[in-house]
Amino acid sequence: MALDYSLLAVGGALVALVYAVVLIFNVRSQNAGTPKMQEIAGAVREGANAFLSREYRVIAPVAVIVAAAIYIFIDIPLGTNGAITVGFVLGAALSAFAGYVGMAITVRTSSRTAEAAKSGLGDALTVSFRGGSVMGMAVVGFGLLGLSLFYIAYQGTITANPATMAGLGFGASLIAMFMRVSGGIYTKAADVGADLVGKVEANIPEDDPRNPAVIADNVGDNVGDCAGMGADVYESFVVTAIAAVILGGLVQLAVKGTSVPSQLVSVVAANQLILYPLTLGVAGIIGSILGGFYIRRSIKSKPMAALNVSLMIAAVITVVIDYFIGQSLFGSNPISYWLFGSAIVGVVVVIVIERVADYFTSYLFPPVRHIAEASQTGAATNFLAGFSSGLQSTAPSAVVLVVALLVSYYLGYYGSGHDVLMGVYSTAIATMSMLSLTGVIMSIDSFGPITDNANGIAEMAGLEGNVRTVTDELDAIGNTTKATTKAFAVMSAALAAVSIFEAFQSEVNRQIGLHNLFAKYGLPPGGTLSFTLSDPHVIIGLFIGSLLPFYFSSFLIQAVGRAAMKMVNEVRRQFREIPGIMEGTGKPDYAKCVDISTAAAIKELAAPATLAVLTPLVVGFVLGPLSLGGVLIGSVVSGVYLAFTMTNGGAAWDNAKKYIETGAYGGKGTPTHAAAVMGDTVGDPFKDTAGPAINSLIKVLNTISIVFVSAVVLYALFV
Amino acid sequence: MALDYSLLAVGGALVALVYAVVLIFNVRSQNAGTPKMQEIAGAVREGANAFLSREYRVIAPVAVIVAAAIYIFIDIPLGTNGAITVGFVLGAALSAFAGYVGMAITVRTSSRTAEAAKSGLGDALTVSFRGGSVMGMAVVGFGLLGLSLFYIAYQGTITANPATMAGLGFGASLIAMFMRVSGGIYTKAADVGADLVGKVEANIPEDDPRNPAVIADNVGDNVGDCAGMGADVYESFVVTAIAAVILGGLVQLAVKGTSVPSQLVSVVAANQLILYPLTLGVAGIIGSILGGFYIRRSIKSKPMAALNVSLMIAAVITVVIDYFIGQSLFGSNPISYWLFGSAIVGVVVVIVIERVADYFTSYLFPPVRHIAEASQTGAATNFLAGFSSGLQSTAPSAVVLVVALLVSYYLGYYGSGHDVLMGVYSTAIATMSMLSLTGVIMSIDSFGPITDNANGIAEMAGLEGNVRTVTDELDAIGNTTKATTKAFAVMSAALAAVSIFEAFQSEVNRQIGLHNLFAKYGLPPGGTLSFTLSDPHVIIGLFIGSLLPFYFSSFLIQAVGRAAMKMVNEVRRQFREIPGIMEGTGKPDYAKCVDISTAAAIKELAAPATLAVLTPLVVGFVLGPLSLGGVLIGSVVSGVYLAFTMTNGGAAWDNAKKYIETGAYGGKGTPTHAAAVMGDTVGDPFKDTAGPAINSLIKVLNTISIVFVSAVVLYALFV
Repeated sequence: MALDYSLLAVGGALVALVYAVVLIFNVRSQNAGTPKMQEIAGAVREGANAFLSREYRVIAPVAVIVAAAIYIFIDIPLGTNGAITVGFVLGAALSAFAGYVGMAITVRTSSRTAEAAKSGLGDALTVSFRGGSVMGMAVVGFGLLGLSLFYIAYQGTITANPATMAGLGFGASLIAMFMRVSGGIYTKAADVGADLVGKVEANIPEDDPRNPAVIADNVGDNVGDCAGMGADVYESFVVTAIAAVILGGLVQLAVKGTSVPSQLVSVVAANQLILYPLTLGVAGIIGSILGGFYIRRSIKSKPMAALNVSLMIAAVITVVIDYFIGQSLFGSNPISYWLFGSAIVGVVVVIVIERVADYFTSYLFPPVRHIAEASQTGAATNFLAGFSSGLQSTAPSAVVLVVALLVSYYLGYYGSGHDVLMGVYSTAIATMSMLSLTGVIMSIDSFGPITDNANGIAEMAGLEGNVRTVTDELDAIGNTTKATTKAFAVMSAALAAVSIFEAFQSEVNRQIGLHNLFAKYGLPPGGTLSFTLSDPHVIIGLFIGSLLPFYFSSFLIQAVGRAAMKMVNEVRRQFREIPGIMEGTGKPDYAKCVDISTAAAIKELAAPATLAVLTPLVVGFVLGPLSLGGVLIGSVVSGVYLAFTMTNGGAAWDNAKKYIETGAYGGKGTPTHAAAVMGDTVGDPFKDTAGPAINSLIKVLNTISIVFVSAVVLYALFV
Repeated sequence: MALDYSLLAVGGALVALVYAVVLIFNVRSQNAGTPKMQEIAGAVREGANAFLSREYRVIAPVAVIVAAAIYIFIDIPLGTNGAITVGFVLGAALSAFAGYVGMAITVRTSSRTAEAAKSGLGDALTVSFRGGSVMGMAVVGFGLLGLSLFYIAYQGTITANPATMAGLGFGASLIAMFMRVSGGIYTKAADVGADLVGKVEANIPEDDPRNPAVIADNVGDNVGDCAGMGADVYESFVVTAIAAVILGGLVQLAVKGTSVPSQLVSVVAANQLILYPLTLGVAGIIGSILGGFYIRRSIKSKPMAALNVSLMIAAVITVVIDYFIGQSLFGSNPISYWLFGSAIVGVVVVIVIERVADYFTSYLFPPVRHIAEASQTGAATNFLAGFSSGLQSTAPSAVVLVVALLVSYYLGYYGSGHDVLMGVYSTAIATMSMLSLTGVIMSIDSFGPITDNANGIAEMAGLEGNVRTVTDELDAIGNTTKATTKAFAVMSAALAAVSIFEAFQSEVNRQIGLHNLFAKYGLPPGGTLSFTLSDPHVIIGLFIGSLLPFYFSSFLIQAVGRAAMKMVNEVRRQFREIPGIMEGTGKPDYAKCVDISTAAAIKELAAPATLAVLTPLVVGFVLGPLSLGGVLIGSVVSGVYLAFTMTNGGAAWDNAKKYIETGAYGGKGTPTHAAAVMGDTVGDPFKDTAGPAINSLIKVLNTISIVFVSAVVLYALFV
């Protein structure tokens, strides 16, 4: 019976991947536009590929070293048959591959979207949505495939020691952090650099082909918003699933040790609690595919509403399937109803945070309009309005988070007859249910950068006005959907953190018991280490953890600043040295700008990545597992709000500018618009570099800590 | 013997207050300047008084209601003879009084400083430093007086139940939050409003008497930076002392219950651990007075260096006195050396954070110069440079914090033969030792707003150039010293939080035991509730707590925006309707602008103050003490870094502007300067409204929770 459900998961993953292939053929069959458009799209594609291959060449040796370290220091001592190392390599490889596949198709969709925009909004929306769906399906397909194959291969090891799964998550999150950080720096260095010289100094419009940084800017949209976001959401999916699997495994071990109400005995016999999160993923894939069918060429207006309907359809179908899966897995055991309740909580969270992000970032609502209004008195008031709006958006997000945690916890707690661990498992199920909608969320998201690129191609190829109107409208929605996806990823980090912490704590205590380290940790024999707030080690860990998102962000924002300055100097040099460039007779050296962004993005990756990887190891080995546990929770607790502030604030600034460009407060060319452009420039690294990278940071901290916990417990200096 | 040390504390407090009176006479004997200068200073004084009396009229009924609630719901049920209510009233009244006295003298010092500036830098520095010292001495004098009188009056109650002290802290921190929030909104509404119309639209210089908001701006410096900062540091001093006293009391109770090594028995017999923090306050007062003597009229240059020497002298003297006090209190018990070690840690922390704040906010160092450089490409890059520099400053501050926590904890832990509670007490001693330097820190701080005002008076009274050069130089240093004091206050909140949490947890468990609530809390009889990170209630509390600084800040920044807009509209109206105003023949209606700031500041106080007071109560009564404990730690853990980001970033923006005004990058009148002015405007509510208010927010949460913990434990819904 158990094998059936793991094969079901493999089947679900294959459905997603096959559907992705179908979409790829569909997209490639569209008209790719005029030769001029294809030439531009080709240059963008070439730049994106150049970046990815250089990035992967840098990452590969790092990944090999990390894999070796895991094998020698963790797998061998633990006797886990190399499972953690294999998981790490598999997670990393599939992450890199998902990013590659997704980006390969988005760079091919943008010129087709620009071409489709000639026929109207519905056509452009459909083409770009299908391109985005390739990314969405690749992410969930590879994610679920990796999870289920790893489960099938190491079923025995996982059942005996659930934390073995963490290697897969560490691989995924390490690559995601690399992609997020360097992709984020790339895209914003090019964007800010292009804007500072182009719009501000040379007074030429955005995406003007005379600007030498214009191709780099478009490449950036692909490597940052497509490949970076794809890797990010891929790891969110994988890490969340792993958190649920580990928790399920821990509950099963506890039930077998009879410390948990016997009513659960019937649902752990065949690893049901471990398989349940994977099957939720299958439900989400089917829901996402069916929901996506709603996006059709016949849509003539209100594209945001259409995307929302698509999301709602996907959500309802997923929930219905969740119900039947629970019934099938758990039989007549009433736990199926309680856990189904948590699955509903997860889906509702997606819909609510989508509304919250929409409210704070769309120009149909007061917050963005207020930023536009504040732009009338200059850049300073624009900046304050945007930043305080970002800060404000943390409150409703926090309410969603807290209510979801509370409700899902109590569903599992009461449903299991007051078992705390089942409460936490239930929270993990809500999170997994949320992430099961990744397919549709990612499709809704990825159409954003595709239309942004289409916009650029339309401008550079000199397509006439109504194409730009269509792509502009879709682009503004793209800002909101991108903010939604970031909120989705960050929310998943916050919710998953509780389960991951539980797994971490249980692993710490298991290792203390295995190695008989009770005396070292000041415990009576058989005692357990409690991560209590009254222990200064825990508090110190919380302070270190909560620092990380702030400090990490400072690196990223400064990296964008430095890289943008290099770009500015290069663009100025080209304007000065290439004759006829401003008249359109001289051809700018686009490749040089692409190269600058690529080199800078990879160089600037080193410091923040080292910070993220070394901090948990140093804290763990020097201050001990109590402080390391504090770091895990501390980083989430401050990180979520800093991330919401930056991603929502950044999108709001961008759309305040777009709102003014629709004619509000005098429209383009006014000082009000100039102030809004400044705000947009500030928001760029907030929303596309620092803000979204916090999710990867949190998850790297989480997964690396679980992978290395056995060594930490043995070798910590102070404890 | 015990009475001796408490009388010593009273004596120390009286020394501070007598010295304050001496300084008042000294300052008032200085030449107050020309009739024109006195007229302007009089208008500022009048506006400041009007604000304070209106503010107090709003606060008084709130304080009466809170006092009644404490008496009915806490004091009567606990049978504490009204101690907590009396403490609350005393703490609140002394806070209000300290703010009043300090401000009364600073408004009188500014015109005298402007007059003294005619004779040179040393004269201006000395006069303004002495004015600031009145504030410093009033803060520590009233703080220590309240603490020691309360101790003498309720000695028996405190010894039996140390948490009784919390009422005093709650009174102090509630008033401080009101003063910080409304003072902060007042000062920045006036400042930003005056700048937006004056500098940006009408193109008249800062402090130009033609600007109708100019008096309101100067009033703001006094109510925000003097009265607000005074109340803030007063409560930091009181709450830190209380944390140490409560911890000392808890250790004493534990020793008497023989759960702690017997080597401590000899040092708890006469309440030594309770009295030690108070005597450290005495040492700091003497050190501060003597250190202040270094500031003399003969100083001709490098005023910052002179202030640093003054601080160093105060620190060394304080440490020496600390040593002898410890010897006298603890006799031959070796614990005196370990605790003396912690006292040294506290003093070293002051000196190091002073260096960190100086590095990140003075234009002599790279961070501020980098912001000035980034201003060349406009306001957007200026914003990003300043914000990321603020983010970056969190790291060294965190290192100081973590090292101080760790070292002071282990000193007490090893010194007592491995007692965790003594470790935390030792941390509290380090914090108290840090705060014992409040006198000199506050003197160094308060001279800033005094010179800022002197600057304004010099400009408005048309004093010639070299006066402005002197006051400008002192003003720039004032930005740095203000940032230092804020870092000092925030650091104290972070360090004190550990002790306060320990007190909170111990009180929770005492109440559970008293009322036999073990079953309600799922504990075995005699068991204790553990605030472990693996309990979702704690995690939920951490998420709610860590949200508060973000959300609270959004209110404050938006309040400044709204109030500044009202000011802008009023100034525009006056420019439009009052004939001859720009030619200097028509007189602006200053009073109207003062009134707008006052009304707005008091109105905008309601929402954030309600949030701060109601959140811990709602969380406590609905989600229970575990979540409330999470809120306490959560708010500190994110709050410190958000506060550092805003206060250091804000001061850096201000000084980047001042650096450009010294002639860098073309100086005044260039687009680079205009961009830097924008950055300064953004930094204003960061550094003077939202950033510093986070300290009061954290401390209100801490103290209100301890005061209401008995009721929370009894009546919590979920637990």
